[in-house]
Amino acid sequence: MKDEIGIKERIKEANTVALERMRLSRPILIDIKCAKDILPQMKKNSIFHAGPPIDWERMCGPLRGAIVGTMIFEGLATTWNDAVKLIRQGGVEFSSNHDHEAVGPMAGVISPSLPILVVKDQSNGKVCFARFVENRVQFGQFDKESVNVLRFWSERISQLLGKAIRKSKGIDLKPIMARALHMGDELHNRPAAGTLLFESIILPHLLGVCSPNDVREVTKYLSENDIFFLCISMAACKAITKAAHGIKYSTLVTVMARNGTNFGIKVSGLGNDWFVGKANMIEGLYFPGYGPEDANPDIGDSAITETAGIGAFALAGSPAILALIGGTAEDAIRYTYEMRKITNSLNDTFTLPIINFQGTATGIDIRKVMRTGITPVIDTAMAHKQAGGGYIGAGLVKAPLEPFKNALHAYGRRYKLV
Amino acid sequence: MKDEIGIKERIKEANTVALERMRLSRPILIDIKCAKDILPQMKKNSIFHAGPPIDWERMCGPLRGAIVGTMIFEGLATTWNDAVKLIRQGGVEFSSNHDHEAVGPMAGVISPSLPILVVKDQSNGKVCFARFVENRVQFGQFDKESVNVLRFWSERISQLLGKAIRKSKGIDLKPIMARALHMGDELHNRPAAGTLLFESIILPHLLGVCSPNDVREVTKYLSENDIFFLCISMAACKAITKAAHGIKYSTLVTVMARNGTNFGIKVSGLGNDWFVGKANMIEGLYFPGYGPEDANPDIGDSAITETAGIGAFALAGSPAILALIGGTAEDAIRYTYEMRKITNSLNDTFTLPIINFQGTATGIDIRKVMRTGITPVIDTAMAHKQAGGGYIGAGLVKAPLEPFKNALHAYGRRYKLV
Repeated sequence: MKDEIGIKERIKEANTVALERMRLSRPILIDIKCAKDILPQMKKNSIFHAGPPIDWERMCGPLRGAIVGTMIFEGLATTWNDAVKLIRQGGVEFSSNHDHEAVGPMAGVISPSLPILVVKDQSNGKVCFARFVENRVQFGQFDKESVNVLRFWSERISQLLGKAIRKSKGIDLKPIMARALHMGDELHNRPAAGTLLFESIILPHLLGVCSPNDVREVTKYLSENDIFFLCISMAACKAITKAAHGIKYSTLVTVMARNGTNFGIKVSGLGNDWFVGKANMIEGLYFPGYGPEDANPDIGDSAITETAGIGAFALAGSPAILALIGGTAEDAIRYTYEMRKITNSLNDTFTLPIINFQGTATGIDIRKVMRTGITPVIDTAMAHKQAGGGYIGAGLVKAPLEPFKNALHAYGRRYKLV
Repeated sequence: MKDEIGIKERIKEANTVALERMRLSRPILIDIKCAKDILPQMKKNSIFHAGPPIDWERMCGPLRGAIVGTMIFEGLATTWNDAVKLIRQGGVEFSSNHDHEAVGPMAGVISPSLPILVVKDQSNGKVCFARFVENRVQFGQFDKESVNVLRFWSERISQLLGKAIRKSKGIDLKPIMARALHMGDELHNRPAAGTLLFESIILPHLLGVCSPNDVREVTKYLSENDIFFLCISMAACKAITKAAHGIKYSTLVTVMARNGTNFGIKVSGLGNDWFVGKANMIEGLYFPGYGPEDANPDIGDSAITETAGIGAFALAGSPAILALIGGTAEDAIRYTYEMRKITNSLNDTFTLPIINFQGTATGIDIRKVMRTGITPVIDTAMAHKQAGGGYIGAGLVKAPLEPFKNALHAYGRRYKLV
């Protein structure tokens, strides 16, 4: 009995420390750099991807498509067959983004030549990374036009934005995110205000380092891609949750990520182990001509936003997103409150005016998930299950229970509770 | 009995036409021009102001202060005493903005040399005007620093923005407003998303006509003045409500405006007559050091936003504004629904995600106001009652019943119903 009180106290303390570190975390966007120049373990033949680790044979269609598209971008292959041949010969080394402090939307594929965002947490000096967001390769398309989207980012937009970000000496992200949450964003599927705010904040720096034509090109890109800020939001959320990782006894979830086959989590007090389960299907709205039979299960590292207390955890503040994902405003508010049942705090930084400026539910606790049977809600886009099928809709998905169960069992073993 | 049915049918038809014209109205921002070059009745010694017509002796403190500040800007006086002397000698001709198709925030003072926004309604070719928004002279301040705000607008910002607007061939405003309403604006006291959207939309045109330094100056101004879009929103709302004005038998309110002493309305079927009552006090939040005893009654033409179905009529979609004006999210939603009791339609263009994308209550009907005793709700800023006292807070105010009662009596006389 004494021991049990002991462990409860230790968990409580550990989780308090973890939440305090999330609160103090101060992610700053400091650069955009080629993956090979900034990711220490990125080799010439590396391909990093969203979700927990997985081998080619078990990968879903959109992840395979995104890998092939990225290999074509890298010049490692020119066709699907080329690419698959090289992979089957062991010519490509796959790895999970999160195992390198990186995140990527949907398939989230990062390759050596791809420029990625660099975010430094000023509270602890740690750095993390995010792949940019687009609506083709990350959904599994690998045709020429899709690959050109990666080229345009690499050769033009990332170069100009990178110069401006370096000129800025760093963009402080939490204040932008807090403002965007008051402007109808949930900063996962809807980062429209975030993108506008970022455009406005980066503009003077762009003007300082680029020609007017280049400024026009970058700002046109931002205003035509109002999803852009998602990658910044993801990088910031990775920094925030990373700050809470590695605290002995803490039962807080610090990673939730999906590779389109499996849903994986990491837990603060459980080191770098992944706990996985089968990825769920998404309920939502399809673009014309598509239906549930076309959809791949849940995919992407973007659930890092929910892990940090935004995304679907902030749905009440973002009712406009319901036009994209379906459901009613009442559902959105209900989900926002429901997440309090599986978390340990209300966010100090991320507040929602529609619930009278209360903070979003933050700090998912594996014990609470298992006690209630309620799993985190995530809003997300949908990819076609076949490689090349692309973006087909958006909706809401619940995390599977299995990863939390596996984590709790591992926790028991680790801390000798069983 | 037959006659009564006859008139009811005629009113219904007239109001249907009025609402259809509001729906079809398409306000385009086409220029910024000096008032004397665009307002036909603006003379060298004219001063136009917010609200219904009023003479100097009955004017409130902030309106007087704004007039004196503007006279100093015009070079008509150098001190308060100078200005008052000239006014008492009959040297200044006062007139109501709305009587010249213009609107201005708070005191709303427009003088010959002040550059004003020009909005053209593409549905009917009619033009209307708005004074820019700032936080000093329009609140009654007339010191040197305040007057310099008018100078900076006149000499720098309006010149550069005007060039860009002309270069753009016109900025279509309803789409921006509809988007801003989905981003937490109500487009009266909170036009933050509107300002960001406008900045993003005007930027390529600015880059086409200005030096990088000038672009930096204008965009810095916009990003530091997130209230800026209010004047664009007001001009658009003036165009929308003007489209519904002058329809025989229509009982719709097409103007609500306050001069800080009186609250005045105009009604579509009642020509250009004003119907006035005493302006109410505002309930809200004060900046530190101020309280109800400092506040002036309700002032400004900005209630044109509520007249067009936004502002406090869209409060449910803008809960973030409650930090400025007070109240709860529940109040905001209640007001949004309550306004349906005194209006004739739900807006097709202006919708609110939080009430499942239903339109805002639009088309205030003087009969419904009198039948229910419910008057329009308006969210607004507060000016100190003494000239020079400035901006002291913000809150909500209800229109007085008297103007609606006076209008209904006039309607009875005009259409021989009594």
